[in-house]
Amino acid sequence: MKTDTESHLRMTQRRKEGHEKKQAAADHEKGLLIVNTGNGKGKTTAAFGMAVRVLGHGMKLGVVQFIKGALHTSERDFLGAIAHCDFVTMGDGYTWNTQNREADMATARKGWNEARRMIESGEYRMVVLDELNTVLKYEYLPLDEVLDVLKARPAMLHVVVTGRHAPDALIELADLVTEMRLVKHPYREQGVKAQRGVEF
Amino acid sequence: MKTDTESHLRMTQRRKEGHEKKQAAADHEKGLLIVNTGNGKGKTTAAFGMAVRVLGHGMKLGVVQFIKGALHTSERDFLGAIAHCDFVTMGDGYTWNTQNREADMATARKGWNEARRMIESGEYRMVVLDELNTVLKYEYLPLDEVLDVLKARPAMLHVVVTGRHAPDALIELADLVTEMRLVKHPYREQGVKAQRGVEF
Repeated sequence: MKTDTESHLRMTQRRKEGHEKKQAAADHEKGLLIVNTGNGKGKTTAAFGMAVRVLGHGMKLGVVQFIKGALHTSERDFLGAIAHCDFVTMGDGYTWNTQNREADMATARKGWNEARRMIESGEYRMVVLDELNTVLKYEYLPLDEVLDVLKARPAMLHVVVTGRHAPDALIELADLVTEMRLVKHPYREQGVKAQRGVEF
Repeated sequence: MKTDTESHLRMTQRRKEGHEKKQAAADHEKGLLIVNTGNGKGKTTAAFGMAVRVLGHGMKLGVVQFIKGALHTSERDFLGAIAHCDFVTMGDGYTWNTQNREADMATARKGWNEARRMIESGEYRMVVLDELNTVLKYEYLPLDEVLDVLKARPAMLHVVVTGRHAPDALIELADLVTEMRLVKHPYREQGVKAQRGVEF
């Protein structure tokens, strides 16, 4: 795309006008229900990127990791050490490691009890429910119960739900939904393994 | 999806086998060129989520923000305060605010000089080049020069490039590419404005 100075100026002016119009139309704040789904990378990391923003503003953050409890994660080391962050991990690792549906359901329930407490407390500005989509896909928790708690959340609370296979009813209820789409992945194509700093 | 205990067990066993097979095939580590693009939310936040992992492991992180220099961001407050993170912001805000192509190009060059220094130093485990795609789309920097530096990076350095409109040649060179696809956005649909903790 070649642009000379004049046509660049026209283009950026049009963009500025468009941007200002959009901003003027967007005039209120509310707690958002945010869903990161899809088969690509970035669902959990995008949640933690927002977490960084929340913490940077000095706001209180809650995190419940539903599936990754058995895995050591540096995000837990890092965020969990911050005073205005409550970071809870549940789960005995991925379901294909535990091979026990009843145990998975009990663990999901314990995680959900923590999540519900955080949501209903009114103390948090953002609550991240990492891999809740996966829990819902396997029906480890009743979808209706989860949706009811999310609907009744405090007006200014942002809730971020991550994981593949977000249920349709959750997408319907959500304010902001992003699908992380895999374009290229080095596991598959180059035999590169999961690496510290990138995957965990 | 209803599953009784037995079929659940079969399914999770198959998954476990598939997962183990994939892991066995993926046997080496390398510094990845990671690109987050698309029109959805999560490109920058997913980069900062990986940044949290890198910092949680005690590894050194570099960040150059190419476009957002004029905006106050809490990620800069938060990550920039960490000892093993070098966080540099360049740019006078979005191009539709500056209306000056020559100034944008000079700013992009300053940012790139910092980025290049970080990449070539061998001191970092990850370097995040936030909104570099946007800089390349507007041809504020020569694409070939950028690609040459990325190709010659240290073997274990991860570089993360974010922004809409990633150039084809960058996608071609990259190891891991994710498209953040907008499914639903509250600006557009509900007139909700950009909010602290979510957008900045």
